[in-house]
Parts: sequence; structure tokens; C-alpha cells
Amino acid sequence: MKATGGIDLGGTKIQAVVLDAEHAVVGQARLPTPRDGGGPAAVAQSMVRAMTEATQGAGLDLADLDGVGVGAPGAVDSATGVVERSPNIPGWEGAFPLGATLSDAFGVPVAVGNDVDVATEAEFHLGAGRPYETVLGVFWGTGVGGGLVLEGRRWIGRGSAGEIGHMVVVRDGAPCPCGRRGCLEAYAGRGAMEVRARELHDAGKATKLFEIMERRGKERLASGVWAEALEKGDRLAERLIEGAVEALGAGIASAVNLLDVEAVVIGGGLGSRLGQPYVERILAAMRPHLFVTDQPPAVLLAALGDLGGAIGAALRSRSRTA
Amino acid sequence: MKATGGIDLGGTKIQAVVLDAEHAVVGQARLPTPRDGGGPAAVAQSMVRAMTEATQGAGLDLADLDGVGVGAPGAVDSATGVVERSPNIPGWEGAFPLGATLSDAFGVPVAVGNDVDVATEAEFHLGAGRPYETVLGVFWGTGVGGGLVLEGRRWIGRGSAGEIGHMVVVRDGAPCPCGRRGCLEAYAGRGAMEVRARELHDAGKATKLFEIMERRGKERLASGVWAEALEKGDRLAERLIEGAVEALGAGIASAVNLLDVEAVVIGGGLGSRLGQPYVERILAAMRPHLFVTDQPPAVLLAALGDLGGAIGAALRSRSRTA
Repeated sequence: MKATGGIDLGGTKIQAVVLDAEHAVVGQARLPTPRDGGGPAAVAQSMVRAMTEATQGAGLDLADLDGVGVGAPGAVDSATGVVERSPNIPGWEGAFPLGATLSDAFGVPVAVGNDVDVATEAEFHLGAGRPYETVLGVFWGTGVGGGLVLEGRRWIGRGSAGEIGHMVVVRDGAPCPCGRRGCLEAYAGRGAMEVRARELHDAGKATKLFEIMERRGKERLASGVWAEALEKGDRLAERLIEGAVEALGAGIASAVNLLDVEAVVIGGGLGSRLGQPYVERILAAMRPHLFVTDQPPAVLLAALGDLGGAIGAALRSRSRTA
Repeated sequence: MKATGGIDLGGTKIQAVVLDAEHAVVGQARLPTPRDGGGPAAVAQSMVRAMTEATQGAGLDLADLDGVGVGAPGAVDSATGVVERSPNIPGWEGAFPLGATLSDAFGVPVAVGNDVDVATEAEFHLGAGRPYETVLGVFWGTGVGGGLVLEGRRWIGRGSAGEIGHMVVVRDGAPCPCGRRGCLEAYAGRGAMEVRARELHDAGKATKLFEIMERRGKERLASGVWAEALEKGDRLAERLIEGAVEALGAGIASAVNLLDVEAVVIGGGLGSRLGQPYVERILAAMRPHLFVTDQPPAVLLAALGDLGGAIGAALRSRSRTA
């Protein structure tokens, strides 16, 4: 059996999958991303462990894998497998040869790509983007990431394309975690929204967000926390999410005005958790800003959900070995 | 001698050129765009006249042209040569078969493209964009138009890509001539700036802009009017141009964050008239918004100036007949 591994390295979790020859997921495992200061080496060890568990879940050994792909956040050099920097992974400072380290551990070639790019490719090849040749992927989570497939080919520009989260939607606007102002992510990123929610909460505004967070045993306002607060009609959560939707509408419409893509696929932790009703709200928020009003792009919920990144990573390995 | 004609149809002028086999301009003519309500037919007649004059200036006859290309504003169907609508051309309502009409007049094939797209292609092939494979053209004039060449190929998406002027830089911001709010063009377009200047002037703010306009015998705040006011230290003009530069910085940086292009070429009436110092100011205004700070794209003044559109139109004819 031809089997390929894929690993999605996230700031809080490591997701591994095994794909069979038809790209079906036949095994998967999820581990927390180490936060104990062990740096990239410890992270790589956990990635090996997750991949091992996923392989066992498929009734296979690591030796059965013909290759492994990795999607990593931050500045990734796909040619060398080196992750230059990865600010969202605890303790990851400076460049680390992730591809070579994992390749030694697995005994097969390891392809490393940007996490958002591989997730976009997964949606393009196997998910919501399948009917289209030109797709913008928007991953709405802690940050807001973007990936582009133009006429069937990944578009990375000089290596850093897709930063839709740092398109300016309000010049001189709200502070963004990136240090700039007015970026889409400053309004729509879960990280920025949590900072704002804490400020408002500390200033005495009523919200159930932090109560829900504690009851769920979380340290952060995870996507499920936001979803529960919205279900319970929490006004502050609604207001912040509404602001996020408006910013996503303006930013995505701007990208569409520039590129005129056929389809936009909305994924990421918040996107996948809030689902179709919010995809429709994002489209509604785009409409007032679309220059060509009579043919908006298809705006679709990511079909592969949480596994998209790991599946896309495995596909990256396949395209390399194909 | 192999000679090709190119015509740039603008809201105020029609510019025609004749290119020789080496793409050098060997003849040119400029006529005002008819504003007497004759509609597209009258405009087409003036285009024939401009092309005839340019050909005579080159010591040639219309019969010597192997083809003619046209760059037209608005919604252009390159496959059929039909201009579906062209809001900036006086009296142009509804679709008009511009390509077929001119082809009958000239007796050669006529290629019709979008004016901004052909101007971008001219800068890519023969102008400031020559050293690069991936270029964003930004044409700063009455409106703000954009054109894209990605890895050597024109990018039009589903037909309407490049609308950088309608990327949102301030959500719920200033009204744009397009009817929306907060678009880049609402701050940087000469049309929107003139409206704002009139409002401020009518409200009693001091400015020499309208005095200069009248002395120059213009009915509008042409690019030369703005340039003279800036030279004379007109505070209101400086303030509005500064706002335009800031908006261009945010909008172009957003486009760069999304696409990571190698080069940005700044042209258009205002861009060409204000020149290199303002290109540098635009780059400075982009910097605070660029996600990858250590490798900004090259930001360059358009090299073909006023003739870029007509030259690009002729190139479009050549690529069609090549």
C-alpha cells in the first residue's frame, strides 16, 4: 500500500495524518505543541511521535511511508526544509533544519511548506476549491492567513505571498499583533480579538467569554469558546465577531478586486468552527466593497476542516515525489 | 517597413502612436476626446483621425499599418473588441463594437484591451518593468487603475482583475466616485481629490488650485495644476496629495503583502507628472505596512510616460498577429 504522511504544525497542536493511494485519510493523531521551552528539537520530537501514532492507527509502520510532508507556520524555505523563523511556535528562535531532522527520523524525504499554502492546496485539490482553477484560501484563526492558487498553480511570489491578514483595512487603525496598524488581522485574528475582549472585560464590560474559557479548562479564547459565547447571545462576543466579519469582508473583497479569483475558501479554527452561517455573513460583508457587483466569486466553507493542513502537507510530499 | 498603430483612449484625450519593427515610436498624434454628445461613433471617428495623423507624422499611410491596437477604459471584451461600458468617456452608454468599427476604418485587424492592462504590459516589455517577471502597474490619474503581469503573463482573473483603486484602505471611509466608501481611489484619485478640494475651497479654505486651473484654461484640476500648486507651496494641495500618497502606500503595500510582486511601476497622469520624488514618497508610505520589511519590491516611475498606453495597445496588436 502506498501511504504518505502529513503533519500540520500549529501553535497549539500537532496534527498528523496518513493518506492512502487515493488521498483518503487512513490514520490520524493529534498532540499538543510542546510549550516547555525545549525549542524546535522538542517540537520535532513531538512531530515524530504524532506521525508514529497516526501510522500505527492506520495499521502501518513508519517504514511503510513513501514520504512525509510538513506544513509549518512562519518563514519556510521549501527548497531546503529550513524554517527560518516561526514566531507562533513557543521557543522557536532562529533557523532550524526541520526537513532534514525529520527526514533522518523517518528515513524518507520530507517536504516542508508553509502551513497556509499547503492547506490552500488541499482545499484546491481535494476540498471546496476542487471545481475551480483559481482559489484564494483564507484561514481565520489566531491570525488570518491566506494562500493562493492561480490557474492551478500555487502562487508564492518571491516566497512571501498570501499575507491577506496584513492587508490594510483601516489606515492608522487598530494595533495588530504584527506591530503594524489597521491590518485585517488586527480586527479578525482570534489573538487580537482576545486582547480586545480582555481590555473590555477589565474595563467592566459584561461578557461570558472568560467564564466559558475557564469552565472548558482553556488558557485562551479558543474557537469553541467564541462559538459557545455566540450561541449564548453574549453581546461583547457578538460585537467583536461582527467587527471581524466586517474586516474580513473588506479585506477579502479588496483581494478579489485585485485578483478576480473564481473562489474563496474560508477555513481556519474560527472559520471551521463557526461554519456556513458565518461564511454567508462574510460574503454579505464583502458585497458592498466588490467592484464587479454582478459576479461575486464563490465563497465556500473549507471542506477538509481541521485536517486540511496535514492533508495538504502530505500532498506536498506527493507532488515532490511524483 | 513593419509598422503598427496603437491608440490610447482616455477620458480627455486620444493618443495615437506608430511603432516601427523595433517598437520605437516613429509617429504620434493627440486629439481631445469628443465631449459633444456624439457617443461612441464620434469617439471612434476621432480615433481614426488621430491614428491617421500619427501615421502621416511617420511618413506613412494607414495602409502601411499591419494592425492597430486600442487601450480603452471600462469593461472591455478583448475577444470580441466590444466595449461593454465606459463610464469615463462622455456619452458612451451601453456596448459598442469598437474593434469591428475601427477594423472597418483601418482595413486591418484591431485588438482592443483594457487601457490599464496594456499600459502595464508596455512598462513590462519596454519600460521600467523590463528587468522583472512579476509587475504591478499602478496608474495614478483621474482614478487609480492597476494592472498585473505575473511570471511574464498578463493576469486578468475572470476578466476584471487589477482594480487596486477599489481596494479598501479605510473601512467606512470617504465616499468614492464608484459609489462605495473607503476605496484607495476615494483618497488618491484626481477626480475625488478635486471634489474634496472644491468642498474645502467653498468652505473658505485658501488654495491657489482653482486660480491656477483658470489661468491655464482648464476646466478641471489637471495633473499640471496640482504640480504647479505643489511647487508654489499651496497648503491645501499639499495636504490632499499627502493623503493620496498615504492611501497609495497602504493600498499598494496591501497588494504586495498579498502577491509579493518583484516590482511596482507608478504611472498615470499624476504619477508621471509628479515623478520620481513622489514615487519615493509612495515607497516611504508603503514601508510601515509591508509585512516582509527587509525586501520591499522595486518601486519605479513608469518609463514610457504619457505614451505607455498607446505603445501597449500597439504591442497588444503585435502579440495578436505574432
